[in-house]
Amino acid sequence: MANTAADIRHRRSTGTVAPGFEPVQNELDAFLLADPRYSAQLAVRWKGEVIVDLTGGADLEKDSITGVFSASKGAAAITLATLVRNGRLDLDTPVAHYWPEFAAQGKGEILVRDLLSHKAGLVNVDGGLSEEDILRSSSGAAKLAAQFPHWRPGTAFGYHGITIGILMEELARRVTGISLQELYETTVRAPRDIDFYLGLPEDQEARFRPVLPMNPTPAQAAEIAANPVASDGLSALMYNAVHRDPTPGAKAFGPNSRDVRAAGPSALGGIGSASGLAALYASAIGHLGDPLLDADTIAAVSQQQSWGHDRTLGLDMCFAVVFMKPQPRMEFGSYRAFGHDGAGGAIGFADPLYDMSFGYIPMPMSYPGGVDPKAVRLSQIVRRCIAGLS
Amino acid sequence: MANTAADIRHRRSTGTVAPGFEPVQNELDAFLLADPRYSAQLAVRWKGEVIVDLTGGADLEKDSITGVFSASKGAAAITLATLVRNGRLDLDTPVAHYWPEFAAQGKGEILVRDLLSHKAGLVNVDGGLSEEDILRSSSGAAKLAAQFPHWRPGTAFGYHGITIGILMEELARRVTGISLQELYETTVRAPRDIDFYLGLPEDQEARFRPVLPMNPTPAQAAEIAANPVASDGLSALMYNAVHRDPTPGAKAFGPNSRDVRAAGPSALGGIGSASGLAALYASAIGHLGDPLLDADTIAAVSQQQSWGHDRTLGLDMCFAVVFMKPQPRMEFGSYRAFGHDGAGGAIGFADPLYDMSFGYIPMPMSYPGGVDPKAVRLSQIVRRCIAGLS
Amino acid sequence: MANTAADIRHRRSTGTVAPGFEPVQNELDAFLLADPRYSAQLAVRWKGEVIVDLTGGADLEKDSITGVFSASKGAAAITLATLVRNGRLDLDTPVAHYWPEFAAQGKGEILVRDLLSHKAGLVNVDGGLSEEDILRSSSGAAKLAAQFPHWRPGTAFGYHGITIGILMEELARRVTGISLQELYETTVRAPRDIDFYLGLPEDQEARFRPVLPMNPTPAQAAEIAANPVASDGLSALMYNAVHRDPTPGAKAFGPNSRDVRAAGPSALGGIGSASGLAALYASAIGHLGDPLLDADTIAAVSQQQSWGHDRTLGLDMCFAVVFMKPQPRMEFGSYRAFGHDGAGGAIGFADPLYDMSFGYIPMPMSYPGGVDPKAVRLSQIVRRCIAGLS
Repeated sequence: MANTAADIRHRRSTGTVAPGFEPVQNELDAFLLADPRYSAQLAVRWKGEVIVDLTGGADLEKDSITGVFSASKGAAAITLATLVRNGRLDLDTPVAHYWPEFAAQGKGEILVRDLLSHKAGLVNVDGGLSEEDILRSSSGAAKLAAQFPHWRPGTAFGYHGITIGILMEELARRVTGISLQELYETTVRAPRDIDFYLGLPEDQEARFRPVLPMNPTPAQAAEIAANPVASDGLSALMYNAVHRDPTPGAKAFGPNSRDVRAAGPSALGGIGSASGLAALYASAIGHLGDPLLDADTIAAVSQQQSWGHDRTLGLDMCFAVVFMKPQPRMEFGSYRAFGHDGAGGAIGFADPLYDMSFGYIPMPMSYPGGVDPKAVRLSQIVRRCIAGLS
Repeated sequence: MANTAADIRHRRSTGTVAPGFEPVQNELDAFLLADPRYSAQLAVRWKGEVIVDLTGGADLEKDSITGVFSASKGAAAITLATLVRNGRLDLDTPVAHYWPEFAAQGKGEILVRDLLSHKAGLVNVDGGLSEEDILRSSSGAAKLAAQFPHWRPGTAFGYHGITIGILMEELARRVTGISLQELYETTVRAPRDIDFYLGLPEDQEARFRPVLPMNPTPAQAAEIAANPVASDGLSALMYNAVHRDPTPGAKAFGPNSRDVRAAGPSALGGIGSASGLAALYASAIGHLGDPLLDADTIAAVSQQQSWGHDRTLGLDMCFAVVFMKPQPRMEFGSYRAFGHDGAGGAIGFADPLYDMSFGYIPMPMSYPGGVDPKAVRLSQIVRRCIAGLS
Repeated sequence: MANTAADIRHRRSTGTVAPGFEPVQNELDAFLLADPRYSAQLAVRWKGEVIVDLTGGADLEKDSITGVFSASKGAAAITLATLVRNGRLDLDTPVAHYWPEFAAQGKGEILVRDLLSHKAGLVNVDGGLSEEDILRSSSGAAKLAAQFPHWRPGTAFGYHGITIGILMEELARRVTGISLQELYETTVRAPRDIDFYLGLPEDQEARFRPVLPMNPTPAQAAEIAANPVASDGLSALMYNAVHRDPTPGAKAFGPNSRDVRAAGPSALGGIGSASGLAALYASAIGHLGDPLLDADTIAAVSQQQSWGHDRTLGLDMCFAVVFMKPQPRMEFGSYRAFGHDGAGGAIGFADPLYDMSFGYIPMPMSYPGGVDPKAVRLSQIVRRCIAGLS
């Protein structure tokens, strides 16, 4: 195709890069040059300071905010971690201690630690969850408390893609009496002016860029077509929730809906920028004002709790307390790193061993979903640059 | 090739389909049209009633019965579940309580629950099992009781493809004093006239159609040739047991042998029709006369006990108490579903969440073994039809 | 290409083969004929007696010794097993009982059994290990004692490729006061004149053949290029340690360094011949003089402790107490077999069920690393021959 001047302009990133981190921008620019459909925001902090803040491509500007799907869970998990730090939530206490109804159907001995590392077998409810169950979550929590677990507790872990948000929100309500969203806003986000929202205020709507659907190559499209969506089953539930609704004419449910953005459900409704994600995770490891967490809490919530073949996704997964951990198929950091990706390819994480944090958002949604391999590659270059400067 | 009228006739299924389930027949017919070598029986019950009963292809008639290999285990497992229901067998009691000799070689603490979910590490015996050990099983059980476990209990699960049948039969004998086959015949099959036998009576022999071996495409044959059978090892044991005997000139051991059909060993010797499998599993969830099991027993025996990489097969597997569960690579139902497939591609299962049961038998044996992907697809269409009617 | 007489000579193996084992040599010769770059030593003992001792190819002679990387761990593990046998080391005692400093960072309850089956999460130390930490290991052990585990103990196992050697050596020192290398030399190797060394004496240096790097085919080279080495992360650590150092100009660290050969670190520094490995494992199951171990100890250290997806390697792995076990993707023996492979493709193991032991060393290093599939195939033929003679 012929490239216009505007095309070319968008195919290099703009923004700031600290000395010694030029290879990061070079790699991002190579990605932009290789694929004219690709846009991205990338932000990195080291010792709390911004060392990379770049934007490239036609579909995202420096000031844009957009939906990051499950990367939202990181903000919710950091908020819960503040309750662990101040002793209001104990990982080795049964969930039912805080939430008595949860004991139904043989769930009385499930620990907070297990619930938050995707081990409770509460990946869905019989009859399904409504949008209201997800958006406001009290009704969803009541259904989950009454649910028979999808596996005998202790026999598996499996990504609770939608329900972990509801469960986190109910735990926050039971422990504090207020919503997780309000807790996040008042204790985490607003004091540090972090550009990442669980519940997007009306006055930020002008900055919102709608998520663009995956734009698979013909080969990728053929691969998708060869793997039709099952009509139910746990992995189909997840797939349908984040990728597409198999019901013809069904309305979209995700960050492109104002209802979702306004509610900011922990599982999938967070809205922000890559620099917001990098700031969020910098605050999780002690930067940006008063430290949110102490070293023991960071260690407790970021240590691996689950590893192996995920019962829901049928893929290798690795979880800490809610957070995703690096693992062989996505080595985004050292064994100390913790973060979360999203269906569209975004990721936010901190790596205490390198004292760095990272935010990345691609557009359109990257194939095949989950952290964009480009982000893993960029993070590796960042660590190499840090190692060269240390 | 030129199609004769008979060819064409066999390339559409015949039988009954209830209104609203036409898409099931359409899909089966598409499979028949696509592969002239393919025959199948398919039967589905919903709320206990037959809604699909179809047969197609040259090698199976509506009245045919044939061997379903490991799908036989489902009949044995339902029989054991009746002992759980009436309190004669407790899942959380050590096996050695019922079978004292089993305590040898450090196996004293293995629970019935663990034994029946393929965790005991008794996948073979030193020196191997004889046909007699499998056909009548008392001698095989004595060998298994004396066996050192193939792994430290608690460190793995792995499909006990042959031995789970022997172990179930010995448990039934110890608890009731009679054989599992007799227990099945008198308490499950005969009172409901279920067309599925553990021990085929002589007078049913005329209906028996021999199992036809896999008829792989050239590409599949090349794949098989590239993976030669190991001379021993756990997965080779399984492979050889069900697929082929590596000893030149060895006689066949399987449902095509009248000895096997007459004895009806739980692991691999069941004979019946797809409608028999659908009726069997309908009875397991409360239909066809007096309910066999109650809701608590169904929940107990159908809940997932094992998940992950199977130590014997080297594949992802998911087991309840004996039964196979749906999982990402074979989503034959909801999280409540339980059943069992066989080496030839057959499957029988119930899905309490949909109040349905399913029986399917292909001919020849389907490649690569285990549940035929066609059956998974057909089951998904059934559930979609039910959802549309509910 | 034109074959010279010397080429042809090297493309058949020479040495001894007992009657009934000719198929083993035939297979080895087929491998040699198929690949002119391939050399190998192969030695097998049955009931303690040498039944196969063959060498072929241009790069190894009958008298050659070379580096076997992680196959060295087998010699160290057999040495530790002698401490288990005589009651000085107990598998179910916390490591900290023998090594109090190990209790730091929440590691007080980790058992010797868990440490030695790759479950402790000590796959590296913050800041990395120096060559000295590996070569002499006391300094490395101090770092590991102080290290926060890479995963919550109990949530995974993962190959401790480098550190398991340091950990074994520290345990040996704590229990006996002398080095594992000295213990191996004085109690295992020298009394039996086993041609396998942890610490190669100067007077054996003339026999040493340097390890030749992998010589991948173009397709294999493309595969390697498509999977670039990550800059860190656990699997990259392992990969870099044994395959290549990503730092341009970094000096080699491995058996081609005299420092490494002289120190003989348990993780990767053993030097010997295939016949030495076969003799070593024959001694582990009661041959070659006074039995090293008794039946209970053999059972205890060779029973599977870990199975599934390895957290470090991202591959299915199966471990006993240090030893590797056969598993679906590498069926080198019965469920009783135990041994260890190395990055170059070597393997040594014993199979008590067949009363055999096996040593194999290929040259150059085989692709893709870990046990050479040729060795698995050769071992299967050996077992078939034994079965034919028994």
